[in-house]
Amino acid sequence: MAVSSHTEQPKPLRHGRVAPTLGIIGGGQLAKMTAQAATQFGCDVVILEKAAEVPAAGVCVKSLVGDWNTPEALLELASQVDILTLENEFVNADALAVVEQAGHLVLPSAGCMRIVQDKLWQKEALAKVGVPLPGFRDTPTQESAVAAGHEFGWPIVLKKRRNGYDGKGNATVRNAAEISEAWDKLGGDTNALFVEAFFPFERELAVMITRSTKGESVTYPVVETVQKDHICHVVKAPAAVDATIARAAAEMAEKSVEAVGGIGTFGVEMFLSRDGEVVVNELAPRVHNSGHYTIEACVCSQFENHVRAVLGWPLGSPEMVAPAAVMINLLGKSKGPGEPKGWTEAVAVAGAHIHVYGKAASAPGRKMGHLTALGASVDAAHATARQAADALQFGD
Amino acid sequence: MAVSSHTEQPKPLRHGRVAPTLGIIGGGQLAKMTAQAATQFGCDVVILEKAAEVPAAGVCVKSLVGDWNTPEALLELASQVDILTLENEFVNADALAVVEQAGHLVLPSAGCMRIVQDKLWQKEALAKVGVPLPGFRDTPTQESAVAAGHEFGWPIVLKKRRNGYDGKGNATVRNAAEISEAWDKLGGDTNALFVEAFFPFERELAVMITRSTKGESVTYPVVETVQKDHICHVVKAPAAVDATIARAAAEMAEKSVEAVGGIGTFGVEMFLSRDGEVVVNELAPRVHNSGHYTIEACVCSQFENHVRAVLGWPLGSPEMVAPAAVMINLLGKSKGPGEPKGWTEAVAVAGAHIHVYGKAASAPGRKMGHLTALGASVDAAHATARQAADALQFGD
Repeated sequence: MAVSSHTEQPKPLRHGRVAPTLGIIGGGQLAKMTAQAATQFGCDVVILEKAAEVPAAGVCVKSLVGDWNTPEALLELASQVDILTLENEFVNADALAVVEQAGHLVLPSAGCMRIVQDKLWQKEALAKVGVPLPGFRDTPTQESAVAAGHEFGWPIVLKKRRNGYDGKGNATVRNAAEISEAWDKLGGDTNALFVEAFFPFERELAVMITRSTKGESVTYPVVETVQKDHICHVVKAPAAVDATIARAAAEMAEKSVEAVGGIGTFGVEMFLSRDGEVVVNELAPRVHNSGHYTIEACVCSQFENHVRAVLGWPLGSPEMVAPAAVMINLLGKSKGPGEPKGWTEAVAVAGAHIHVYGKAASAPGRKMGHLTALGASVDAAHATARQAADALQFGD
Repeated sequence: MAVSSHTEQPKPLRHGRVAPTLGIIGGGQLAKMTAQAATQFGCDVVILEKAAEVPAAGVCVKSLVGDWNTPEALLELASQVDILTLENEFVNADALAVVEQAGHLVLPSAGCMRIVQDKLWQKEALAKVGVPLPGFRDTPTQESAVAAGHEFGWPIVLKKRRNGYDGKGNATVRNAAEISEAWDKLGGDTNALFVEAFFPFERELAVMITRSTKGESVTYPVVETVQKDHICHVVKAPAAVDATIARAAAEMAEKSVEAVGGIGTFGVEMFLSRDGEVVVNELAPRVHNSGHYTIEACVCSQFENHVRAVLGWPLGSPEMVAPAAVMINLLGKSKGPGEPKGWTEAVAVAGAHIHVYGKAASAPGRKMGHLTALGASVDAAHATARQAADALQFGD
């Protein structure tokens, strides 16, 4: 691992007893796991979320309830912490800019968030520095979307520029006649849409990368992510790809995060074609589901490195501590209580590291937790993880 | 690892959304690290401590301020949680018994704590099941202490039966003439004292062991603990002892914890003589400094296994994930602020896992944090840990 040789001390603490106080915008599982990494260093953590009973509320010193899309709530959080960071890409960039202008440190910055949260601007930024991407076009009108289909060849993917996640906000369109229906489904008259060429991927890859305020960056191993209904189900680390592809993916991740001025841990989602072509699908300006495996499988987790990065500290090693790891998401099967069935069977599986987020209720497809297993091979780790995941059931 | 095959579900939750709520008596670093393990499972954690600004306060859902030696404060905690556990051996056993009699689950139990916290009773319980110990005698008077010296041969160790820790409460006495001074120093007229034969140890060993409510137990590798001024400075895992000694130590740990009816994680401190004799020094009825290395170095940490044990869940594997690990305590050098000097240098050391507890002020010898490094050998791990520990300084 490359570490910097910075020797300066942190600035005097405005808050916190032994290290800077971290404010996290959001209180879900990503905030929870970030808080757990920060508190290990002795940082105090304050979260801001729209509801009180959220996963991170039980692992921080203070939890503020408020709308993190408003400057008022963000300024209240900022007044109690040394550094602000976030766990989702939807925080209003204008509100973040107000907080920055008031003199607070927000990482990633409002400017970075503004670019990344608009997928068209994000792609323009990445294309500018030569990151391989599927073709894309701004399509302010249905006619321009049809034209993009003719240009790229059908099918195409019509996408919302903002606020899409887990496949919500995307529609695959097979021909010109289908544009109108997709346009209406995505609310194209009120939501800005753009078109992307359909990329015939064989597998999906992801690279977690952390970039610090000092310009240092570390790249985690390339992993394979297996989605179902557009939700991440399984992450296999490392991905079974040759060294050339792995190197290319890591370089693309570095270029991408640098292109948007990203600070902290970012997830870079990629597509791999049958003939070995890799393109970036999109960038998540935050710790990411495809990096949860790093808690047990890497020397320094994506969460700890995120904390180090925003604190301006040297980054930790992203190396794996075992040959392979597999992470499986624990998704709600149906509506029901937050308590899973099968606790004792699941924890009886040797080597399964179980994380349950503490959400009060289960719902279909809701991320209720995840678990990770290490192994001598991806298959071995997968078998362990599968056994434990099958034992735990959220909802009926 | 042996795991049980229990298939029953946990009892209906009285508290907690996804798993039982854990109440921890105490709010120091041991409570903090236990809380971090419990919250990973989605347990809510409530702590009870005498002051508000304590290490665990920042990582739990609620922190009660009160005197945990009183039944009132304990009952208040008990009313908010499903299971009570503790982080120190000094909690008044009578107060714990009141809580149990009110129908609450306390683990380890009041009866166990009553035996363990009286070192004479503890030794009697261990001797009864044949655990090797240095000779000991109840010495209610100075005359009986002198007699014990003549019996065992000088020097002897005069000890408080209760409330001694980190060497406070012990005095080595070289001859009959010194008894009087030692007796007064330890307040023998108000504190019950006993005498132990001096055991000429070459090294100190420790075994962490977890025993669950289901009777299952797992034993961590035997480690060597290096004390300075009676405070644990360094833990080397595994200890450089032959397999026979390691096996004997593990068996002694199992016997000891069973003898006192212990549930949860216990630390068993031992002496090793030059000629390979091992005796138990004492038992700590709680997670223990000599098991902090298990967070990064073992499949399942002493903290996670403690949580599993008190929840009645199958225990996790105590196996190490690396050939060796070394833990170094970060002790205050002098009075001063809680913020260490040298953060950036310390975190720059690749592979050093730094835990800072978040205490507001440093004091000489105060445990401010610890760090652990893994390695291919104890020497390699020690070098890494040493480098990081030397960089961090608490106090001037």
